[in-house]
Amino acid sequence: MLLNKIEEVREQIKTWRKEGFTTGLVPTMGALHAGHLSLIKRAKQECDKVVVSVFVNPIQFGPSEDFDKYPRTLEADTKLCEQEGVDIVFAPTPAEMYGEGNRLTNDTLTYVCPPFFYVNKLCGKTRIGHFDGVCTVVNKLFNIVQPDKAFFGQKDAQQAVIIRKMVKDLNIPVEVIQCPIIREESGLALSSRNKYLSEEGKKDALVLSRILNNIKNCYKKGITDVSALKETAYPFLTEKHDLEYLEILDRETLEEKEKADNNTIVLIACRVENVRLIDNVYLEDK
Amino acid sequence: MLLNKIEEVREQIKTWRKEGFTTGLVPTMGALHAGHLSLIKRAKQECDKVVVSVFVNPIQFGPSEDFDKYPRTLEADTKLCEQEGVDIVFAPTPAEMYGEGNRLTNDTLTYVCPPFFYVNKLCGKTRIGHFDGVCTVVNKLFNIVQPDKAFFGQKDAQQAVIIRKMVKDLNIPVEVIQCPIIREESGLALSSRNKYLSEEGKKDALVLSRILNNIKNCYKKGITDVSALKETAYPFLTEKHDLEYLEILDRETLEEKEKADNNTIVLIACRVENVRLIDNVYLEDK
Repeated sequence: MLLNKIEEVREQIKTWRKEGFTTGLVPTMGALHAGHLSLIKRAKQECDKVVVSVFVNPIQFGPSEDFDKYPRTLEADTKLCEQEGVDIVFAPTPAEMYGEGNRLTNDTLTYVCPPFFYVNKLCGKTRIGHFDGVCTVVNKLFNIVQPDKAFFGQKDAQQAVIIRKMVKDLNIPVEVIQCPIIREESGLALSSRNKYLSEEGKKDALVLSRILNNIKNCYKKGITDVSALKETAYPFLTEKHDLEYLEILDRETLEEKEKADNNTIVLIACRVENVRLIDNVYLEDK
Repeated sequence: MLLNKIEEVREQIKTWRKEGFTTGLVPTMGALHAGHLSLIKRAKQECDKVVVSVFVNPIQFGPSEDFDKYPRTLEADTKLCEQEGVDIVFAPTPAEMYGEGNRLTNDTLTYVCPPFFYVNKLCGKTRIGHFDGVCTVVNKLFNIVQPDKAFFGQKDAQQAVIIRKMVKDLNIPVEVIQCPIIREESGLALSSRNKYLSEEGKKDALVLSRILNNIKNCYKKGITDVSALKETAYPFLTEKHDLEYLEILDRETLEEKEKADNNTIVLIACRVENVRLIDNVYLEDK
């Protein structure tokens, strides 16, 4: 069932609650791929009813980012969701979410702002305001759907940490479930932004997962010094790669470390053909 | 029933929900007076179960404000609540609300930030960060108690406007009920901070309600020019009064006006004996 209005979603949810059903929410920006489908499948396993939101959220894009050209494929997304047995696809307009005619700034709208310590690094360093936009829209979706569980991908690792922190700090009664990264056979992490890449670009993009895997292998072989681990990346990089960051941090607090350990995550962001790609790996799977 | 732990409150609320009871929340900082009691009575009328939170919220006090000396009278508060038939008094510690050992800043905690336009005036102009602290704690209390309705006093008019705005902007499934200001027979608006005043100070404090009533009377007689209405205040003020602001604004958007109308609120903040007092009046009761 495709719904565009907040009130319609609330009505449906209210009925489910009365009947004692649990609800899972999978928040997406659409352009669904197998990564999203893995979240949906997990939600179907764990909850009686599943809501997938499809909303390209304007307030999480910076002025020079790809909001306008971000892929929008609602018809295909809805079909995929139907095939997976999703109960509601919630696809509101920006006006439905933020009010007609509102300027979308913190001058006129209430924002949910994650802590600077978690924001002022990795993607947050270049994407100013991005995580305020993410937390605000996720908070809104939580209030609209009131899910028992919400499903996020490890692919956006900083986002997942920040969402968990928001849920804890604001006592939000939602359980956050994180699902593993889904990759092409080549190793390339699935992303809606992969659509921007040429065939050659996709090959150049494999460097991200190769760098991460190599660091993980080095760690398994006993190298724990973070500087040394970072150094191993450079031989992989060519003039096709515009590295934005490579960081080795605590996987839950995003604190810097001198020595890697089993609570460590390695994160990379790199532009290929001017497409900004991100990927990450835990040094120890749990 | 006096509870200190978030989980205890959640458990009790869950039981009520299952039994189909509605819940009302009255958020307070304790030091309860007849103003708070009017909120509690209203909540008892409109909801099956009533929760009163008593929490002097550190993050809404500035460094030079009265957090340490703010009156704390939990025993008397609990007794009053029992007499009124309150079901839960929720009195957490700061550590319970914000985590043990957390520094209480937006460097380490997620904040809910109301829009600058609503904050950067009236009390928000001098109380930097105050309304971020208020919105954050109210958001947390909403998530902990998940009330059907929450009750706020008109006395803190800017706060009430900002809370309504937060609820709307973040799609929070709580109905906000605003209750009228309760006054002493003299006209003095009730406030926990009145305890700081001497008998003489209480007399000097009457100037606030007199200025407001006089402006309302002038409006009723046909004066609508905002500058002219403000001018009428000055004859009331003596060297005992340190006026912080006198504003005449739209009661819902807090926009400035040149001409007062039936959607207008008059707000005053003034120090008497160095105690900061606030009061307000609608030009037209609705």
